[in-house]
Amino acid sequence: MDTDTGSRDCLAWAARDASGILSPYRFNRRVVRSDDVRIEITHCGVCYADVHWTRNAHGDSKYPLVPGHEIAGVVMEVGSNVKRFKVGDHAGVGTYVNSCGECEYCNDFLEVHCSKGQIFTFNGLDSDGTITKGGYSSYIIVKERYCYMIPDGYPLAKAAPLLCAGITVYTPMMRHKMNQPGRSLGVIGLGGLGHMAVKFAKAFGLKVTVFSTSESKKEEALKLLGADKFVISSDKQQMESMTKSLDFIIDTASGDHPFDPYMSLLKVGGVLVLVSFPSEVRMHPGSLNLGSRSISGSLTGGTKETQAMLEFCAANKIYPEIELINIQYINEALERLVNRDVKYRFVIDIKNSLK
Amino acid sequence: MDTDTGSRDCLAWAARDASGILSPYRFNRRVVRSDDVRIEITHCGVCYADVHWTRNAHGDSKYPLVPGHEIAGVVMEVGSNVKRFKVGDHAGVGTYVNSCGECEYCNDFLEVHCSKGQIFTFNGLDSDGTITKGGYSSYIIVKERYCYMIPDGYPLAKAAPLLCAGITVYTPMMRHKMNQPGRSLGVIGLGGLGHMAVKFAKAFGLKVTVFSTSESKKEEALKLLGADKFVISSDKQQMESMTKSLDFIIDTASGDHPFDPYMSLLKVGGVLVLVSFPSEVRMHPGSLNLGSRSISGSLTGGTKETQAMLEFCAANKIYPEIELINIQYINEALERLVNRDVKYRFVIDIKNSLK
Repeated sequence: MDTDTGSRDCLAWAARDASGILSPYRFNRRVVRSDDVRIEITHCGVCYADVHWTRNAHGDSKYPLVPGHEIAGVVMEVGSNVKRFKVGDHAGVGTYVNSCGECEYCNDFLEVHCSKGQIFTFNGLDSDGTITKGGYSSYIIVKERYCYMIPDGYPLAKAAPLLCAGITVYTPMMRHKMNQPGRSLGVIGLGGLGHMAVKFAKAFGLKVTVFSTSESKKEEALKLLGADKFVISSDKQQMESMTKSLDFIIDTASGDHPFDPYMSLLKVGGVLVLVSFPSEVRMHPGSLNLGSRSISGSLTGGTKETQAMLEFCAANKIYPEIELINIQYINEALERLVNRDVKYRFVIDIKNSLK
Repeated sequence: MDTDTGSRDCLAWAARDASGILSPYRFNRRVVRSDDVRIEITHCGVCYADVHWTRNAHGDSKYPLVPGHEIAGVVMEVGSNVKRFKVGDHAGVGTYVNSCGECEYCNDFLEVHCSKGQIFTFNGLDSDGTITKGGYSSYIIVKERYCYMIPDGYPLAKAAPLLCAGITVYTPMMRHKMNQPGRSLGVIGLGGLGHMAVKFAKAFGLKVTVFSTSESKKEEALKLLGADKFVISSDKQQMESMTKSLDFIIDTASGDHPFDPYMSLLKVGGVLVLVSFPSEVRMHPGSLNLGSRSISGSLTGGTKETQAMLEFCAANKIYPEIELINIQYINEALERLVNRDVKYRFVIDIKNSLK
């Protein structure tokens, strides 16, 4: 329970109000229950959700608020019923830490769609009445079901961003059967999610075109990430030359943009997967009807698929591009994230900087 | 060739200008080529497309314009290379009468998506330079590939509406695998397309809910068409009681309406299929993302699937509900169609009234 008594042995950084400014904070976590795993956090990725909730963008922030839902670390303690983890294992936690565990979606390991609602890793109301606190902290205690095995040898710092950015693009890629070599994918936006979409796509054998508003990302997209083509989305001629050429598009752009020009790039039967939240989705019906095209939304993935993705990344040597920072730098980092000034994910070196 | 010389032995009704008013007209059709079938038209369904093009709604109408693309009749003559048809067979023609025949889509029998463009059954520019003329006429000459066998014993009057209204809903139902008994479908709008969606759905073993703006359609929806449930879409309480309950929705509503309330009725992973052309498609991204939902467009189907649908209808005794009219009534019928005053498809008795 998070009370103001007790040892308050969990070190953290928290936002105290809608300014979103983070500062050091101490609190208690629950004792390890029979089905819990206690993880010493070594790394935590910095997701745009951390900006949203520290700044109360949705009006539901509960302060003090400890963000962070891309968590990697080392198992320090396991409950008596825990089967998949032992002390010393590398483990991760993603965007949710609980769900009802018994609805049709939980039974299908789609806990993210739990009928009673997934419990978010931070700012969530857990079943025991506590408000969840995230990974900008020294350790976390989570039910085994919502912890992931990080494969041996996979760097913990790089594992962290897989648990939100990675799985958020991996899930719709699998659902829409994008793992077919030779098919073509467009990726809109080249941030935390977009750069992972490129990496997964290349591992699947896809031909990848990156759409960006900024020429500055071209060289890295092609050389570092291995994209096949780079298109400036404001260049009408370049865009039109791609008409009806793509099997799939993944739209990771956080800002508003027109949809019709992208829909026209899809082949007949093609699908645009939306993983971002623009202010609205608006298009001409012909953009859907004329080529039997679809637009499909997606959230992050379920526990089974998240574990599969971690193993896929290890087997295929897929590593997010990260900028490792100390927790003391987090306020600058969040500001840089707002300004899209990061290649491609900040990861906090919790172990070496949170003391 | 359509010239002003020759026998002008094809009787028809045509619109002469954007008033859309139809009146008797005579013209020539081409001679039967080696791969052509000549069909004496007995019946032609009346589609909303006939209103659009007779009234020049798209600004591309070429007068005199003979509408009609739900054509049923009897084969009178076949070219020397025709294999599937012989004189006396019952045959139909749908919304297109030509395509390139060699692109990837034509090769997949998705001629409706032909890379060079399908040639519409009326008001289309055919490969020989003529403007196509539709089924409000005494006979038609069409390449074998774009003619369909109407199964023995299937009433020709009822076969006609299958060739646009029927295939337009059948195609996305098959593509999205709606033929799974026990799944649930919502049908928005109960006109020519909507009532066929209900009939197909019941044959597939689906649980069907009809959404309508008008209570007047309730009894017929439930008793005549066999729907399981009827919901007045303006009744917020009824709508909310259906939250997350449907696997699929087919949207046949021609008018504008909000999409978010319908999207929220879909289960996780559910899909709304759009077969109509509202002025725009607009929704909150959460309507897509939160339940990994999709909206998918569709046109009519390819030749192979159209033939399969005709056989499915015959085997399952699926018959459109029609109001049989004489060609002399067509101007009133089109006006009634605009006012949605038809249950559920006008079919012109060409054989007995066009003289």
